Amino acid sequence: MIDALGGYGVATVHEAQDRAGLLAAYMRPIYPGAAISGSAITVLVPPGDNWMVHVAVEVCRPGDVLVVAPSSPSSNGYFGDLLATSLKARGVRGLIMDAGVRDVATLTEMKFPVWSKAIWAQGTVKASLGSVNVPIICAGLRIEPGDVIVADDDGVVAVPRASAVKVAEAAEKRVANEEEKRKRLAAGELGLDIYDMRDKLKKLGLEYR
Amino acid sequence: MIDALGGYGVATVHEAQDRAGLLAAYMRPIYPGAAISGSAITVLVPPGDNWMVHVAVEVCRPGDVLVVAPSSPSSNGYFGDLLATSLKARGVRGLIMDAGVRDVATLTEMKFPVWSKAIWAQGTVKASLGSVNVPIICAGLRIEPGDVIVADDDGVVAVPRASAVKVAEAAEKRVANEEEKRKRLAAGELGLDIYDMRDKLKKLGLEYR
Amino acid sequence: MIDALGGYGVATVHEAQDRAGLLAAYMRPIYPGAAISGSAITVLVPPGDNWMVHVAVEVCRPGDVLVVAPSSPSSNGYFGDLLATSLKARGVRGLIMDAGVRDVATLTEMKFPVWSKAIWAQGTVKASLGSVNVPIICAGLRIEPGDVIVADDDGVVAVPRASAVKVAEAAEKRVANEEEKRKRLAAGELGLDIYDMRDKLKKLGLEYR
Amino acid sequence: MIDALGGYGVATVHEAQDRAGLLAAYMRPIYPGAAISGSAITVLVPPGDNWMVHVAVEVCRPGDVLVVAPSSPSSNGYFGDLLATSLKARGVRGLIMDAGVRDVATLTEMKFPVWSKAIWAQGTVKASLGSVNVPIICAGLRIEPGDVIVADDDGVVAVPRASAVKVAEAAEKRVANEEEKRKRLAAGELGLDIYDMRDKLKKLGLEYR
Amino acid sequence: MIDALGGYGVATVHEAQDRAGLLAAYMRPIYPGAAISGSAITVLVPPGDNWMVHVAVEVCRPGDVLVVAPSSPSSNGYFGDLLATSLKARGVRGLIMDAGVRDVATLTEMKFPVWSKAIWAQGTVKASLGSVNVPIICAGLRIEPGDVIVADDDGVVAVPRASAVKVAEAAEKRVANEEEKRKRLAAGELGLDIYDMRDKLKKLGLEYR
Amino acid sequence: MIDALGGYGVATVHEAQDRAGLLAAYMRPIYPGAAISGSAITVLVPPGDNWMVHVAVEVCRPGDVLVVAPSSPSSNGYFGDLLATSLKARGVRGLIMDAGVRDVATLTEMKFPVWSKAIWAQGTVKASLGSVNVPIICAGLRIEPGDVIVADDDGVVAVPRASAVKVAEAAEKRVANEEEKRKRLAAGELGLDIYDMRDKLKKLGLEYR
Repeated sequence: MIDALGGYGVATVHEAQDRAGLLAAYMRPIYPGAAISGSAITVLVPPGDNWMVHVAVEVCRPGDVLVVAPSSPSSNGYFGDLLATSLKARGVRGLIMDAGVRDVATLTEMKFPVWSKAIWAQGTVKASLGSVNVPIICAGLRIEPGDVIVADDDGVVAVPRASAVKVAEAAEKRVANEEEKRKRLAAGELGLDIYDMRDKLKKLGLEYR
Repeated sequence: MIDALGGYGVATVHEAQDRAGLLAAYMRPIYPGAAISGSAITVLVPPGDNWMVHVAVEVCRPGDVLVVAPSSPSSNGYFGDLLATSLKARGVRGLIMDAGVRDVATLTEMKFPVWSKAIWAQGTVKASLGSVNVPIICAGLRIEPGDVIVADDDGVVAVPRASAVKVAEAAEKRVANEEEKRKRLAAGELGLDIYDMRDKLKKLGLEYR
Repeated sequence: MIDALGGYGVATVHEAQDRAGLLAAYMRPIYPGAAISGSAITVLVPPGDNWMVHVAVEVCRPGDVLVVAPSSPSSNGYFGDLLATSLKARGVRGLIMDAGVRDVATLTEMKFPVWSKAIWAQGTVKASLGSVNVPIICAGLRIEPGDVIVADDDGVVAVPRASAVKVAEAAEKRVANEEEKRKRLAAGELGLDIYDMRDKLKKLGLEYR
Repeated sequence: MIDALGGYGVATVHEAQDRAGLLAAYMRPIYPGAAISGSAITVLVPPGDNWMVHVAVEVCRPGDVLVVAPSSPSSNGYFGDLLATSLKARGVRGLIMDAGVRDVATLTEMKFPVWSKAIWAQGTVKASLGSVNVPIICAGLRIEPGDVIVADDDGVVAVPRASAVKVAEAAEKRVANEEEKRKRLAAGELGLDIYDMRDKLKKLGLEYR
Repeated sequence: MIDALGGYGVATVHEAQDRAGLLAAYMRPIYPGAAISGSAITVLVPPGDNWMVHVAVEVCRPGDVLVVAPSSPSSNGYFGDLLATSLKARGVRGLIMDAGVRDVATLTEMKFPVWSKAIWAQGTVKASLGSVNVPIICAGLRIEPGDVIVADDDGVVAVPRASAVKVAEAAEKRVANEEEKRKRLAAGELGLDIYDMRDKLKKLGLEYR
Repeated sequence: MIDALGGYGVATVHEAQDRAGLLAAYMRPIYPGAAISGSAITVLVPPGDNWMVHVAVEVCRPGDVLVVAPSSPSSNGYFGDLLATSLKARGVRGLIMDAGVRDVATLTEMKFPVWSKAIWAQGTVKASLGSVNVPIICAGLRIEPGDVIVADDDGVVAVPRASAVKVAEAAEKRVANEEEKRKRLAAGELGLDIYDMRDKLKKLGLEYR
């Protein structure tokens, strides 16, 4: 199910979920072309303190995606190549970080995908506690542990576990439906005709001059 | 004429136009290396509503560039691979979007170039009208239908149709002029000497210590 | 010494310097994969006026890095391929610009690396004086002439000349130390154990449920 | 209970709730000195469309606070003096708007308090549906219908209905505790001594030179 | 006509103009309660250079509003109490500045109203030319010399001279229309009924649970 | 000397110092009309951790101004009414905070002036050390302990102790000079004539049409 959702991509899953579940537009991949899906391990961290990320590694299992958000806004580099090495060893598929990351040249070489708010080397301390696997607000979205995360070049979307099957079915229909439209559009047909928009536009008062 | 302006590139055309006509710095290409020029089809859209983009497709002809601006700021993903397929079928050279776009992995594969304010999957509705081929303010610049659009890795510049010939001539001179300077600079000559700046700087009070 | 610091990279040098010396997170490379180090030539420029950059070229020597900051915030394109040609001819390794740059397609082809606040074609004038080789504030950091600049995909860090040896030694130790940890993490050991964190976390009150 | 929480103020309630529940720092009152508390009526609105605010008015009762968030970021003026007149007639205590408001001179005269992301006259349409009294993300916080909202010059905090009693008790203790400290601080005693910090600081390595 | 438009206020004039003509939301008054209208004198200034503001003073006549925009973004303090003294002596009603202003304590005492992007003391030079009474883009809107400017606590709106009469008539109707609605809303009637929205909402699918 | 500088105000002192020494434009007073000057006590704090502010109180003496900057960007509320009570008891004149503050209603009542980046109730921890009375970068400016701080409605400026006398003299001259100009401008004379600008403008090519 998680892999299926990943296959549809962020835009399709977001639409299949009634246009809900997207993280904010500032969450960008550190290199182009990455596309993952997985089950969310959530981490709430203090600003400028990455200790709980180390704690969270222990609960990660193959197929998970680590999702980290600070309790107040931060662009510090919470995550680098050593943590990535550790996560990769545990089968984690990627990181969603509502803050900064660093060592991005090495992360790119390792092909460990990260979506983050910033790329910045600013270090963190290990002084205060946070929480692992609690509901968090990450880049404007509430994410619960176990939510399905899908991330690609378009950004990041989360799907509650309970609705994953329904969303995947809606996504499947959408994709099937789009394939035929793509062919007709490529052949030069207009969306105005394919989607039968002319009448509705006229009723709303659209004028051609 | 449009192709000639495209050949000079954004920075040169902007200078040739007395440093006018640039869109805001936040307009960035979705992939590096794209460079286009074309005639503007303009679209004014409501925030979060892409219906008028579908309407605009019908008036596009080969060599056009679609230029879209919302009536109030938005980062929604107004445009994706289906619309790109349709525009490509009509010979449109690219999109300038003062808002968000999505399906950027597919757009990159298709080599359909887009300059936008954001990359974001957030969907739009089709509920309200806007306008096609009226003057719009796009990323801080007024653009009229038929303006020549030039876009590359440096951003986006617009040239009013009436002054396109004059600007192209000024750009041509500028390029010719730069070629010789580039050689002298590469050989180690200083701009201070090539541009004859030392006297002017001295008069303004520049001191060497 | 400068080359050694460059070899460690931005994140390591920043940590070796007690987490100081980073420029703001908005300073980004114009293309991925660039990594340089060098001695700072500093330039203070008026907003929208790049005259002093031309003046600064004359004092640049092989191995230098040009560091430019405006006296009030600007995103104008202070720098393009002609200035890069001139700097390259003098052996300059790269540019740090707390403003905009342009001609980035050509700069990328030339492999002349730039870290900047913006990419924008907006031209500048040559009307007012500034200063060369004075202390400047660049992207939130004070930089003195002769500071060692290290820049890569993680951003930009500066090291005062007087502490360069000490920082390089600390960086060397850090790298040696990390190598062994990387192997243990790759083998599946947990940071919680390698860094001996469990006791400290327990004392602070961490609970497992 | 709701009035008690209002009496403690935003900063105290936030601390009493273990430093949780604050809306983002960009939420500011339209005039200084306003301070309210109430039960949340939540509204999810499309970008640039305020129709659902009109729908929500009907479910408002005396003592409520209207909390509105757009489904994608917007600064449009969703709310003005007519809607305020209507809400005031129904006994609503104020508005929390993660977007823009207008008619602020009249709202100030009417003493109808609003906390918003922007003040902007840009009008909205009435074309698409949203939702009333569903959980929403407002300025980075998840708010459920019936949450207790407290707002003053420091911003906005929300308290889940289930924990309101507990939070009020903690706030009460905090206030009592602060009163005595305030007197000692006013008399010239140092926080270092009152809070017994000197030993802890020394252990962490603080040095006086 | 200009005074009539001023009397309706920014929000009403903007609506009467089919929701067009607003400057960006970041344009804020330096003190609350100011409300002006007047005929635009436009000034295009280089970044960080206020020379042309001095030039523009000469063409100002009683009833004018000075509208200033930089050719690239700037927050410098282009304007202070001396220039305000000069403008006041010429009967100018206020300033719209898409950049910074300073001496705001004195401007407030003088009751010289200013809407600006920033309050900042950063000084400017007098080194380069710009233009007076040409079309400019100010805070995202194109303004022509002679446009009617209306500004109050809600922001700034411009009305082209040619349509001023028509807009004033539409504003007058709107105000008359609102007066009656305000009374009915104050008496507790619902907008849902006054505006006859229930049927339309039902047709679009609104459900009550 | 410090009081004299305070009397001239921020804009004048900044100009008298050759347009240097201003903090960034985002530093705003929490209430209008405050104007102070004093000797800087500097504090470097970790993000989201206000412990060092408590430490700094002990070194404050009458006439000082506390200047606080985080080691990475933060908008947390580092400071509230209890700390203000303590500082007031020690004769401190105000606070410059490159982060957030809270309890602003009480601070306003107490007439304890604060210039800050944000107003936000978000609490801080007391877990990590920082530094007191070291050079810091605050809102883009380097400030040394003992620098003279001047703050009013226009923002904040710092004057190095060593140049305070010279700057005060230059400010005095500037003020004297402005007084006469203000009278002439109020009487309707033009700056173009008073400052003798017409010839210079003509030489640069200014045309009247």
